Amino acid sequence: MRKICVVVASRANYGRVKYLMKAVQQRPDLELQLIVSASTLLYRFGRAVDVIKADGFKPNRSLFYILEGENLVTQAKSTGAGISELATAFDDLQPDIVVSVADRFETMATAIAATYMNVPLAHIQGGEISGNIDDRVRHAITKLADLHFPSSEQSRERVIRMGEDAAYVFNVGCPSVDVLVNQDLRIDNEIMASYGGTGVGIDWTKPYVLLVQHPVTTSYGQGFAQINESLAAAVEIGLPTVVLWPNIDAGTDDVAKGIRVFRERNPTLPFHFFRNFSPEDYGRVLANAACLIGNSSSFIREGAFLGVPAVIVGDRQMGREHGRNVTFAPYEQAAIAEAGRRQIAAKRYDSDPIFGRGDAGPRMAEILASIELPAIKRMTY
Amino acid sequence: MRKICVVVASRANYGRVKYLMKAVQQRPDLELQLIVSASTLLYRFGRAVDVIKADGFKPNRSLFYILEGENLVTQAKSTGAGISELATAFDDLQPDIVVSVADRFETMATAIAATYMNVPLAHIQGGEISGNIDDRVRHAITKLADLHFPSSEQSRERVIRMGEDAAYVFNVGCPSVDVLVNQDLRIDNEIMASYGGTGVGIDWTKPYVLLVQHPVTTSYGQGFAQINESLAAAVEIGLPTVVLWPNIDAGTDDVAKGIRVFRERNPTLPFHFFRNFSPEDYGRVLANAACLIGNSSSFIREGAFLGVPAVIVGDRQMGREHGRNVTFAPYEQAAIAEAGRRQIAAKRYDSDPIFGRGDAGPRMAEILASIELPAIKRMTY
Amino acid sequence: MRKICVVVASRANYGRVKYLMKAVQQRPDLELQLIVSASTLLYRFGRAVDVIKADGFKPNRSLFYILEGENLVTQAKSTGAGISELATAFDDLQPDIVVSVADRFETMATAIAATYMNVPLAHIQGGEISGNIDDRVRHAITKLADLHFPSSEQSRERVIRMGEDAAYVFNVGCPSVDVLVNQDLRIDNEIMASYGGTGVGIDWTKPYVLLVQHPVTTSYGQGFAQINESLAAAVEIGLPTVVLWPNIDAGTDDVAKGIRVFRERNPTLPFHFFRNFSPEDYGRVLANAACLIGNSSSFIREGAFLGVPAVIVGDRQMGREHGRNVTFAPYEQAAIAEAGRRQIAAKRYDSDPIFGRGDAGPRMAEILASIELPAIKRMTY
Amino acid sequence: MRKICVVVASRANYGRVKYLMKAVQQRPDLELQLIVSASTLLYRFGRAVDVIKADGFKPNRSLFYILEGENLVTQAKSTGAGISELATAFDDLQPDIVVSVADRFETMATAIAATYMNVPLAHIQGGEISGNIDDRVRHAITKLADLHFPSSEQSRERVIRMGEDAAYVFNVGCPSVDVLVNQDLRIDNEIMASYGGTGVGIDWTKPYVLLVQHPVTTSYGQGFAQINESLAAAVEIGLPTVVLWPNIDAGTDDVAKGIRVFRERNPTLPFHFFRNFSPEDYGRVLANAACLIGNSSSFIREGAFLGVPAVIVGDRQMGREHGRNVTFAPYEQAAIAEAGRRQIAAKRYDSDPIFGRGDAGPRMAEILASIELPAIKRMTY
Repeated sequence: MRKICVVVASRANYGRVKYLMKAVQQRPDLELQLIVSASTLLYRFGRAVDVIKADGFKPNRSLFYILEGENLVTQAKSTGAGISELATAFDDLQPDIVVSVADRFETMATAIAATYMNVPLAHIQGGEISGNIDDRVRHAITKLADLHFPSSEQSRERVIRMGEDAAYVFNVGCPSVDVLVNQDLRIDNEIMASYGGTGVGIDWTKPYVLLVQHPVTTSYGQGFAQINESLAAAVEIGLPTVVLWPNIDAGTDDVAKGIRVFRERNPTLPFHFFRNFSPEDYGRVLANAACLIGNSSSFIREGAFLGVPAVIVGDRQMGREHGRNVTFAPYEQAAIAEAGRRQIAAKRYDSDPIFGRGDAGPRMAEILASIELPAIKRMTY
Repeated sequence: MRKICVVVASRANYGRVKYLMKAVQQRPDLELQLIVSASTLLYRFGRAVDVIKADGFKPNRSLFYILEGENLVTQAKSTGAGISELATAFDDLQPDIVVSVADRFETMATAIAATYMNVPLAHIQGGEISGNIDDRVRHAITKLADLHFPSSEQSRERVIRMGEDAAYVFNVGCPSVDVLVNQDLRIDNEIMASYGGTGVGIDWTKPYVLLVQHPVTTSYGQGFAQINESLAAAVEIGLPTVVLWPNIDAGTDDVAKGIRVFRERNPTLPFHFFRNFSPEDYGRVLANAACLIGNSSSFIREGAFLGVPAVIVGDRQMGREHGRNVTFAPYEQAAIAEAGRRQIAAKRYDSDPIFGRGDAGPRMAEILASIELPAIKRMTY
Repeated sequence: MRKICVVVASRANYGRVKYLMKAVQQRPDLELQLIVSASTLLYRFGRAVDVIKADGFKPNRSLFYILEGENLVTQAKSTGAGISELATAFDDLQPDIVVSVADRFETMATAIAATYMNVPLAHIQGGEISGNIDDRVRHAITKLADLHFPSSEQSRERVIRMGEDAAYVFNVGCPSVDVLVNQDLRIDNEIMASYGGTGVGIDWTKPYVLLVQHPVTTSYGQGFAQINESLAAAVEIGLPTVVLWPNIDAGTDDVAKGIRVFRERNPTLPFHFFRNFSPEDYGRVLANAACLIGNSSSFIREGAFLGVPAVIVGDRQMGREHGRNVTFAPYEQAAIAEAGRRQIAAKRYDSDPIFGRGDAGPRMAEILASIELPAIKRMTY
Repeated sequence: MRKICVVVASRANYGRVKYLMKAVQQRPDLELQLIVSASTLLYRFGRAVDVIKADGFKPNRSLFYILEGENLVTQAKSTGAGISELATAFDDLQPDIVVSVADRFETMATAIAATYMNVPLAHIQGGEISGNIDDRVRHAITKLADLHFPSSEQSRERVIRMGEDAAYVFNVGCPSVDVLVNQDLRIDNEIMASYGGTGVGIDWTKPYVLLVQHPVTTSYGQGFAQINESLAAAVEIGLPTVVLWPNIDAGTDDVAKGIRVFRERNPTLPFHFFRNFSPEDYGRVLANAACLIGNSSSFIREGAFLGVPAVIVGDRQMGREHGRNVTFAPYEQAAIAEAGRRQIAAKRYDSDPIFGRGDAGPRMAEILASIELPAIKRMTY
């Protein structure tokens, strides 16, 4: 029985691999090993580990390795500490394949630890282009990985063009779409009541804007100004606005401070601030928004499948493959507000299957169960 | 004035960047920052730092980060510890460009630290193919790097095919060849007397075999058997044999134990064992050998320029671009000995310029001084 | 010229060594080396490094080593990471004596690093008893230290009873008192305006309560309930209340959450929340309070000198030597409020010199400049 | 059922706790958790883990945390890395009591990790005086520990004088003596044949000298000269000599180099070099030696019980309580040889019970099973 070790390092990670984890658990020929780590364990980032446990998963290891500071130095050091922790864990758990997702420093830590421990590495969401530091990290992880699950056809082709052997590159869609097809997407105030949050109360059955904006590591130090433009645009648009706190990253403090200052200066505006949702409830919040504003990759990925209009702000996702639902705007209040109004008027777009149809988890599990990986990875040239 | 930070992490690293370091020092528009680290500082691996200081270089930082154990766990952990140390050092030194060489875990540590610290990374010897774990690490570093100095035309093309922008990929040859053209290659017993070493004394003016065999990380645990075949082949060939202790790596203990056991069982055979040479003296030892046996990449690189016949044993360098001087053999005494005898009979091959003409250091320094690197790296597709 | 390396790891540390640092700087026979580290560098804990730099000190090193999580695991891991960072720094800086303060895990990291690097260690505030985990850490540091600056006579005697050689144990008072005698202690709204903070505005010229309560590591998990009792007591007392966010520690999140929830539920009560003051302004805030409530050791130390009435809540400072100004209360609203009212009625106590007269910094510097430390530390039995 | 977690960090550790581990295993009310770590796992130090497994123990965790370099920096860093590894392990294993032995940096790492993880710490061999850096570390560990098992009456009294509560200080003797009473101490060549070793063969049934000399961390850099004096003295004495490689420590390289150079210069002298023995066989080697020369604490501890004459060289054990069997000598060939000859003439001393009668393991296990430890440790003044 193959041991498949999934490393979940953030709430976003979990949303993307939950249905893969379920699929692995359901197969008799696979055993799920679960490592929860990094911001998954941290209160400031919503402790996704509590949601994970509530969903019935039992972590084999809980690893703390985030150096506090959210700057460039601590991001590098956290990567180093993560490698060290994960090496010990892999040595104990002896997985047959390690699964990692996306492109953040925690994923790099997983990739490096697996590489040097000689454990085959499966990588989800390789081959994408987002126009920032994440690109080089994502592509470096592709070069370290043995098995690739890019989330779209363009990404699959790009992974192969980088020299990966097509026999080990599979586009089965993005597992984050699985969440959407496996649940009721209707929202109501009762379901959402448990989240608390801060700010003025929100009626989830009325039109609202969802604002999620992460710091951009290559423009470190500008996060405060950047979030301000988006918040001001949301004020200008005039709908109730749901704001999610940003990911842990170099620059998080800047963005978080922008949100905090805004909240304190505007205690009566219809803004509501949340730390975290379960993947399902996040699916609901996405599906029912009048418009998505910010730079979360979920706006592109889940947004395409759902057809929810989105305004992608700034350059974090520039150049990324996207569906019909997306329009772009610079870090400028007027431009963001204008794009937002146009998108709200558009209501909904047709569902776009570029990121899959919601069966990625079981299809990945099938491949993880059956593939024979070569001892030495071959470049195709 | 640009600050160019060179990270030297092993004796092999130093041989490859010495003439780049000299060239950087000589330019008024560049400042050399030198970090010596890892096995460079360790007695068991010949403390190359002493040679570096004797050559007149003054390290800005000395960083210890090798976890002892030479197994898969400690290799991963050393990478993690290295990232942590280098992040602090880069934060203090604020280099404009970091230079790293080749494909070992120490180089990966340098690449990750520079990436997350937002310091542009120049990578020497990218794009090569060696047919083992080093390949994926080397290519991953390529994806992290901003500026590439591959050592041959094939490598240059491969780096570009992986999606790197050709405007930042320069084949100026390998700086390890620079060592060879900047020195007198004659050998005599007086020059070599200072090295001591153990085993039966050697007359450097007579024909000898040079045996350098590193552990292969993807076949961890077989190093003992592998070195035994090569040692037995050298006995069969019958010439005096110079043996160099292996690099620090997962599996080093195995290979080192093979050498130790051989030495103790065969105290009277004409074998001599050394820990380290200066780059210049290593150039002499290479240039004057009757035949090179093992898997050192210097046999391929410097060997091509010198035309010294070489038998590459096993799969560590399989698939690597090479000159006329190279033949391959499996881990089998008979095959190695047979290939060795043929190569000794061949005497010398014509010099092959595939790895450059010995002016790589100054040409790299020129590029480091003048290139404008974009804030965000562009993929060419 | 002796190099005296002071390691500042928290805002509290800085308040205690500022006048020692000044005294070291002013002596021609001493050179100050300054390492700022840990929460000193973190926004969430008020970035004391900005105050340090504004005071004209130039850090030789800035070291990040706090693992995020504020639980038992990350406290241990932060100690480990701190040792590693400090070892590299001491190796570079080659100090003659390292100075560390008090009893937190950062101080333990400093003590261990200095011990293994063979650098003599001077320890400030040894020999005290506070009735919790800090005790064992403080006494362990005493056993590692070469030179002791306990802050009171009782502490001096205790250090000697533990076996330390009296020739190296000096009670020159606590340097935190130095701050108080070197400044104007008057407070007004103009001076304090720069701090911002959150909550309802405060008139510093009117009577106010100062509430500072840190988590107690041996009762991990109870911080939320504990701070609630104190906050409720302050409401009951009815004076405007100044609340300081807690130190970084296992349990900080609990206490911080208690404060946050209280703030959100009681937006109109006269409470004001601050992250940080300069040592001077903290001196003002202490000196002018009607009453001090919580468990900050400053209430005992500076409080004794100032004669400001204090209610020490819970067991964090139980058993600690204290002056006339202190009374104790359990974690119970009624008891705290009752004690608070009695203390407010008492107005001011006479100044108590048990923690010195405010000349500790120069006297320590004199000893650091002249003492001869033996190569091997002698136990007195 | 209480979980007792024993951390074994070196071959010497194991010899001292083996019979405690056995006693814990045999009690129905205790569960043994075993962590093997540090040099226990390293080939260069004899991989005691193999002996441990051969004895039937199954490690719960194997932790690598030795930074290579054997100098002051890496000793500090290894302590830091050890704390980090042990914190994760304790968090997983949730022991009720952690047991640590003696005074090396690995023990300090165990003590710090246990302290900050709030796990009660039992410390074996506290309270001793050895006249070097180990003293301060040993006493610091005493201040961190909750339960003390000093190995002699003098040590017990010293632990109490340092302020520890006598109710938690138990002299049940040293568990290293247990090894000696639970085995046949006769030696013959067959038993010892399996060890290999290097150098000229030895007849174990004839008189021999045992030489074990560790580096002294406070005289870092002098190890080479120090071991030379002892080796020369052994040559002068003229008996066959058994040499054990030194412990991992700052300075090990120096001592090891001294031994290596001696071995190569004197290939025909009757010296034999070993890396490791099982505790039982080490007991045999001790018990049958004509004389013990060096600074191993086993010469004092086991030596007292066995009555084997010993010459303690240098200051590493100066001031340490000892039995009749010990005499001291400085680092001088003539003095060592002279003392050695006198001791050899003395043949055997009466057994001295100052370090116990060989029942320490079961008595400790009894206490570990029944003691109630207070939540907060009390100083006795």
